[in-house]
Amino acid sequence: MTPTGNRLCAMFLGVWLGFGVLPAAADTQVAGETKISSFTLGNGMEVVVIPDHRAPIATHMVWYKVGSADEPPGKSGIAHFFEHLMFKGTTNHAAGEFDRAVAEIGGNNNAFTSYDYTAYFETVPADALEQMMAFEADRMRNLVLSDEVIATERDVVLEERRSRIDNDPSALLDEEVSATLWQNQPYRIPVIGWMQEMKQLNRADAQAFYDRYYTPNNAVLVVAGDVEEEAVKAMAERTYGKVARGPDLPPRERPVEPEQNTKRTVTLSDQRVSVPSFSAQWVVPSYSTAEPGEAEALDLLAEILGGGVRSRLYQELVVKQRIAVSTGASYSGTMLDDTSFAVYGAPVGQAALEQVETAVTREIARIADEGVTADELESAKKRFVRATIFARDRQTAMANIFGSTLATGGSVRDIEEWPGRIEKVTPEQIKTAAARYLVPSRSTTGYLLPQAKGGN
Amino acid sequence: MTPTGNRLCAMFLGVWLGFGVLPAAADTQVAGETKISSFTLGNGMEVVVIPDHRAPIATHMVWYKVGSADEPPGKSGIAHFFEHLMFKGTTNHAAGEFDRAVAEIGGNNNAFTSYDYTAYFETVPADALEQMMAFEADRMRNLVLSDEVIATERDVVLEERRSRIDNDPSALLDEEVSATLWQNQPYRIPVIGWMQEMKQLNRADAQAFYDRYYTPNNAVLVVAGDVEEEAVKAMAERTYGKVARGPDLPPRERPVEPEQNTKRTVTLSDQRVSVPSFSAQWVVPSYSTAEPGEAEALDLLAEILGGGVRSRLYQELVVKQRIAVSTGASYSGTMLDDTSFAVYGAPVGQAALEQVETAVTREIARIADEGVTADELESAKKRFVRATIFARDRQTAMANIFGSTLATGGSVRDIEEWPGRIEKVTPEQIKTAAARYLVPSRSTTGYLLPQAKGGN
Repeated sequence: MTPTGNRLCAMFLGVWLGFGVLPAAADTQVAGETKISSFTLGNGMEVVVIPDHRAPIATHMVWYKVGSADEPPGKSGIAHFFEHLMFKGTTNHAAGEFDRAVAEIGGNNNAFTSYDYTAYFETVPADALEQMMAFEADRMRNLVLSDEVIATERDVVLEERRSRIDNDPSALLDEEVSATLWQNQPYRIPVIGWMQEMKQLNRADAQAFYDRYYTPNNAVLVVAGDVEEEAVKAMAERTYGKVARGPDLPPRERPVEPEQNTKRTVTLSDQRVSVPSFSAQWVVPSYSTAEPGEAEALDLLAEILGGGVRSRLYQELVVKQRIAVSTGASYSGTMLDDTSFAVYGAPVGQAALEQVETAVTREIARIADEGVTADELESAKKRFVRATIFARDRQTAMANIFGSTLATGGSVRDIEEWPGRIEKVTPEQIKTAAARYLVPSRSTTGYLLPQAKGGN
Repeated sequence: MTPTGNRLCAMFLGVWLGFGVLPAAADTQVAGETKISSFTLGNGMEVVVIPDHRAPIATHMVWYKVGSADEPPGKSGIAHFFEHLMFKGTTNHAAGEFDRAVAEIGGNNNAFTSYDYTAYFETVPADALEQMMAFEADRMRNLVLSDEVIATERDVVLEERRSRIDNDPSALLDEEVSATLWQNQPYRIPVIGWMQEMKQLNRADAQAFYDRYYTPNNAVLVVAGDVEEEAVKAMAERTYGKVARGPDLPPRERPVEPEQNTKRTVTLSDQRVSVPSFSAQWVVPSYSTAEPGEAEALDLLAEILGGGVRSRLYQELVVKQRIAVSTGASYSGTMLDDTSFAVYGAPVGQAALEQVETAVTREIARIADEGVTADELESAKKRFVRATIFARDRQTAMANIFGSTLATGGSVRDIEEWPGRIEKVTPEQIKTAAARYLVPSRSTTGYLLPQAKGGN
């Protein structure tokens, strides 16, 4: 939030979206109640307006359809690095002016980078919306990328990598698990970048990235809050509408996964680890790549298997067997390419990690072999819908749902129709998804272990 | 060798070079005895001439400095696919004419693709050399790439993948081990390509690849045999010299490996497997990336640890303990980027795979902890030099040594000086290399297992 150095940078790592913080898409009720509208400016910028008149505030977000998975080979980290650069000076505003303007009116702002998108947001009094648009439209095209700015901010992201990844055994393991799970797809490369490549990022890289991706026709504007469509449209046209359209980009066709045939493990032993843990992952379809109904089934499978304290894993391992301190499952459906499904667990007391892993594997096999009951599925659907209603209640969460969906190839209609599609999922589809995708001989499992004595 | 379909295609997989079939570079004696010369044509084509007058034959090779690791993202397999296309028709010769001309004079010809280069060769009576040059210079620029040719040959390489990789559990495992060992470097992608990307290769991809890489300034000509420098030069100028220089290519800077922190395993269980086996690999420097003396030490470490029946692994596991049917070590030093060091083993009789792996690990630890003796090192150097002398005796092996070295950034002088550098390696350097690189907590191990009953 401060203009230099230690700005808190929320870098979404994909998994974030899968842990129930945000459901993959929103409840259709919202659309009915609040008259969500969407339109496109003359220069190709998509706009979504989500009126919410409970308080005189507005959330303003700009989503660029570019993330770490779009980076050129050898340039890992450029998307996230660029997110930092966007807080530097423009030809019209000195570095820090935008941040100060937000702070002075009691708002807050930040940005985040993920595999498929980069987003910038401000939550402010509704009457400051046009000012936000003016600032955001300005930095879409007028950023000053000097060698000095590049060098300074590169040091910042290098330090961010050191402190957030290299000093954290769990983060280091996650990186190498991803690099193992994904044999070809770019989700294998960490969003923050590989250290040796981050060090080489330069002004030419940044300028090329800016010119290619930071254009109105590669962006989605989401405004949620105490606003009306017509007023937003008029403001957007006065600000963003003046930014010239950029080059047409080719379709986002990236390398995809080959068929996987092996079972893989990745182990990190570190003296900072006290409780061992494991996480097994599989490559599964996302909402963008799945056959109809499959992604919805995977969302509900994650909910039934490991979504909170009502789930099979929690009930069996934590409550009944008392062998796990934590266990669960997650599915990150809102991705442009194939995504991952994960299960995880850690032992409690004298229980061994192996016991926990075996018990988790058994719960998966039970669903793959015997399926789930109709009651269990109905209950999971209800929990899932309830989570969506909670999300709806948070303006920023709503904006996130629309932004992430539109930035990964989905539409407003997809979001509106999603609850109906969830409702239609059958017990047989849950069983089929588990049997088809969660195959032990094709899993990639990470083990985080206390350092064995004397050893490497 | 036949103009269509079933031409035997020798695709070098890197490891090939490490198993002692070819040493990493040649004995300097050769240079002294045979007056190896090198020069560059006006259009930038490098030429190496290796006179060998024992028989009236000549080996003619053209090495292009492009391999699978140079492919654009999502286009895996294009380098090898292109090797196949080079046997199709040109504007001057119908498909098959070149092959027939070689066969009619009793010669043989073929080609191979690796990570860093693609090479074409003919061994023929020496008086047919200029004819070979004419054919080879012709297909360097005049290939006819029609949609029909592309479609037909794409089916051939897809079938090659099915028969050589997808039907072979060992090859499938090797692919996924590589995709796991290499977290960022393109050696992670199989030379033959991922099936789903091979299916998409098209005429535009092939034409772009041809125009970019198949140029005299991106090629090395190696002629070994009953020839003289001046005559070769005159012939090369009359043939290759007429091909226009292509675009200047940027340096071959590819994504490199991040620091590795984890121990990884990759397991394939298959009913076609009867004897289980394992192979552990590490990322290590190549002759192109190593500090002075390090690659030479790794070559000798592979020799001492696992180079044939005199090695520690063979003597300990096969002869003394009688637990292994096979075991050994290999190092593939002639690569443009960092390369891999591998150890492997399979149990005999009632011995378990785990016993073999434990024993191999112990032999590595013995060298890392206690080093090797001066006698042992001298003996390894002698065996290594002897292998080189054998290689020297085969004209094609000599041509391979020079071609692969020059295509991966080395020079004729590197090859000439190599035996002297091997001679200087000390026991301490062997110990340091083992301790620094062959670290158990950073290994990637592949397990090929018989199918467990009832299971995946």
